[in-house]
Amino acid sequence: MIIVANSTALPLVLLAEQFAKLPGIGMKTAQRLAYFVMGMSDEEAKEFADAIINAHSTVKECSICCNLTDSGVCPICSDDLRDASVICVVETPKDIAAFERTNEYKGVYHVLHGLISPLDGVTPEQIRVKELLDRIKKGGVNEVIMATNPTVEGEATAMYISKLLKPLGVKVTRLAFGLPIGGTLEFADEVTLFKALENRSEI
Amino acid sequence: MIIVANSTALPLVLLAEQFAKLPGIGMKTAQRLAYFVMGMSDEEAKEFADAIINAHSTVKECSICCNLTDSGVCPICSDDLRDASVICVVETPKDIAAFERTNEYKGVYHVLHGLISPLDGVTPEQIRVKELLDRIKKGGVNEVIMATNPTVEGEATAMYISKLLKPLGVKVTRLAFGLPIGGTLEFADEVTLFKALENRSEI
Repeated sequence: MIIVANSTALPLVLLAEQFAKLPGIGMKTAQRLAYFVMGMSDEEAKEFADAIINAHSTVKECSICCNLTDSGVCPICSDDLRDASVICVVETPKDIAAFERTNEYKGVYHVLHGLISPLDGVTPEQIRVKELLDRIKKGGVNEVIMATNPTVEGEATAMYISKLLKPLGVKVTRLAFGLPIGGTLEFADEVTLFKALENRSEI
Repeated sequence: MIIVANSTALPLVLLAEQFAKLPGIGMKTAQRLAYFVMGMSDEEAKEFADAIINAHSTVKECSICCNLTDSGVCPICSDDLRDASVICVVETPKDIAAFERTNEYKGVYHVLHGLISPLDGVTPEQIRVKELLDRIKKGGVNEVIMATNPTVEGEATAMYISKLLKPLGVKVTRLAFGLPIGGTLEFADEVTLFKALENRSEI
């Protein structure tokens, strides 16, 4: 504990410790945030606390795609204009927001809520693989786009799931890898450059 | 709002917006924190929300030094072993924690809760100057150490307060400025170096 308990009120220390549990927030920043909360009005503090409780109690996984939603079926799954024959498989709900920002993808999603990682003790049973298989077994799906991150775990999960899906007669694709738009060759890492070279296309 | 509302549950967006109000936290980080809260257990989320409400409702300003405390008088002011004849004037309660970490200062404090800054519309009436004067008028104070930051506002506030205090016959001092311990001359800025030269002492 960085805060000197003697000079700092205990409830303030406890609040700072709560902030310090959040990812990317160390004890010093947590302390700063706790002091900031002290400067809020009573209404603002209550609003903040309520937002935590409210989000936590009302937001659950969509019964179809496992995205987080405050209704039983998420807005994307219940949207008739979306193409339910194409499923984009992502690791987290955040990834859906990223795809939606492109305004280009019109299919639906499936959120795994994690990646297979034997080193971290994450097995296929702990992520939403079974739910994906059940969805595809119901029929009507033509293509599954594996959109996990280009990391060791992301690749392994994509390979694992594609092996399970192929016997079901569904087309499985993977996101393209190459140079990021706006990036420069100078700062591209070797693997990205190799992928960009390997997947080159005629112009 | 960075989150695409269509794909993200509203309570989650609202929670992210709450996080985004905190200093140094942008909308992307706020979104990440909101998702992290979703991954907490019900008890953890409740504990977090309670910590905010609890800190906010129980922590008030010490009736003597204006430090934040959950008792009427803070532990430092009520500690008989502290030398109440020396008052260290700081901008924020965080600064007290910094001084306490040195384990060297045995006097008491006074928290201004801000610095005089006409550009930001902060006048002496909005910070705890009056409380400091009242304290000193009660007698028993030999020295007031101005420990505001070495910034324009910090200097101006220190000068302003020292002018008010001198007629009261109390010794007013200012923290020493010079090279930080562990720093190197190469990276010291001109003003710091000038101060270090100006305040040099015989060895």
